[in-house]
Amino acid sequence: MFTAPVFSPPFIGLNGNVVATADAKLHVTDLALLRGYGIFDFMRVINGIPLFQDRYLARFQHSAALLGLEIPLSITALKAHIHTLIAANGHPSAGLRLVLTGGFSPDGYLPTTPNLIVLDAPYPAPKPEQYTEGVSLITHSYVREIPEAKTLNYIVPIRALPQIRKAGAFDVLYVDPAGWITESSRSNFFLVTKTGVVVTPHDHVLPGITRGVILQLAQDRYPVEMRPVHIEELQTAQEAFLTSTTKGAVGVVQLDALRIGDGQVGSITQALHHAFLAYGEAYLAQNKTSGSL
Amino acid sequence: MFTAPVFSPPFIGLNGNVVATADAKLHVTDLALLRGYGIFDFMRVINGIPLFQDRYLARFQHSAALLGLEIPLSITALKAHIHTLIAANGHPSAGLRLVLTGGFSPDGYLPTTPNLIVLDAPYPAPKPEQYTEGVSLITHSYVREIPEAKTLNYIVPIRALPQIRKAGAFDVLYVDPAGWITESSRSNFFLVTKTGVVVTPHDHVLPGITRGVILQLAQDRYPVEMRPVHIEELQTAQEAFLTSTTKGAVGVVQLDALRIGDGQVGSITQALHHAFLAYGEAYLAQNKTSGSL
Repeated sequence: MFTAPVFSPPFIGLNGNVVATADAKLHVTDLALLRGYGIFDFMRVINGIPLFQDRYLARFQHSAALLGLEIPLSITALKAHIHTLIAANGHPSAGLRLVLTGGFSPDGYLPTTPNLIVLDAPYPAPKPEQYTEGVSLITHSYVREIPEAKTLNYIVPIRALPQIRKAGAFDVLYVDPAGWITESSRSNFFLVTKTGVVVTPHDHVLPGITRGVILQLAQDRYPVEMRPVHIEELQTAQEAFLTSTTKGAVGVVQLDALRIGDGQVGSITQALHHAFLAYGEAYLAQNKTSGSL
Repeated sequence: MFTAPVFSPPFIGLNGNVVATADAKLHVTDLALLRGYGIFDFMRVINGIPLFQDRYLARFQHSAALLGLEIPLSITALKAHIHTLIAANGHPSAGLRLVLTGGFSPDGYLPTTPNLIVLDAPYPAPKPEQYTEGVSLITHSYVREIPEAKTLNYIVPIRALPQIRKAGAFDVLYVDPAGWITESSRSNFFLVTKTGVVVTPHDHVLPGITRGVILQLAQDRYPVEMRPVHIEELQTAQEAFLTSTTKGAVGVVQLDALRIGDGQVGSITQALHHAFLAYGEAYLAQNKTSGSL
């Protein structure tokens, strides 16, 4: 009945064990299957080193705590487990997904002992033209339920995929009924005002790891504001961009019918993307020599 | 690694096959596990007859369509599958859960061929005192994302369980930021005005099967209104009640600190609950003799 999916890594982590991919199954009474109850995180692995691992694992812990779920391994044991899995799969460059579910629930409602899945899959590299040409977004009226947690719930954006495709857009931009921008489905959102201030929403957004690094790098270079951002501000903004683990910083050149700035990827967006790549390189060099993996 | 949960039925339905409970597992790349993407439904089985089966299966189809998921069996084949599973498990009285997931997703985002789970578990009978004493609710600021679909997403109410327990309440009542009532976490909501009008919210709610039957029965007996319901109306309401598959109609006697009516289960609530039970008995008698199962 189960046909193995097109999924190249030979092994998957399941509750701290490294198991053959075809054997990585969970009983159907798991609360993620029955009630969508669980959290996850996703980090890049470059040359065998999980980029910014401590930041991702701290967020994973925070999301778990917000849903009252206990990670079945200590953080030290989880790092060792990730290390073992990466070595077993042998991908030099990967995307590493950690999923924590509500556990097997006899009554289909009450969480029990969580199940932990670690999936080490090939890294989905962004297309080069996303950096040179930028991307377009369409607005979607939505605010995530528990925005500060990276929950499993992606029903709204996955359901919007046909609409995104039809519009020829890259993704949605979540806007609340009063026009306040929060985030995109899998990215944080920034704009650059006409006076050169880098602005990103502060509330009702996921605390993105890439967002955090970009903010840190931006603060050394530009005026930065974390505050509510209204969709009207895009009328006069000179740049806008998304940040995410898979993308770094990607310019947004259009929202619905509105051209943003001059319709080209802005110079501050490019500068921050390059600064982010350099910061990542430095992290990798340091973590390679110090052997902290 | 997998410990069989306390789960009495010997068999579970998986993609149209009846499999031993311990073998009912799905690969961890299923989109319900990775992204909470899926829908479900839940009906009662009494003396081997699925109560109001056609209504539940129509809603199951509607939810699936709203999420762009195709049920892998025809409705005729699904009914036969349910019948086989009920016969194999041999429970005279059960709760039957149907789950349809986004399928095994190689990229962890795009839906593929859905997986169908049918769980036939012992029916969780409500406590008798719920009918004699009524229940209390606490308000929770929330509106479900795609209310007309029975999606898997129960993160908000499951996360609220400690808060519900702490308040000594039975469940939450979802209220939007402007005070408009929608529904409870697993029930629809009704109130009876001081002039005896039976009122239930019409928009942004799940079209409950029990709600539909109760509305049908109420329309023969009382003035009925389906319209927006504001929380302020509970100040003067003489009754309030919840409707659901597992409960029928259960009186709500308190919301937060507010006593509703005289704090007792109302006569209209009781009359509608008994009419609902009688309607169910008639359905069972008819479907037994006609052999339509």
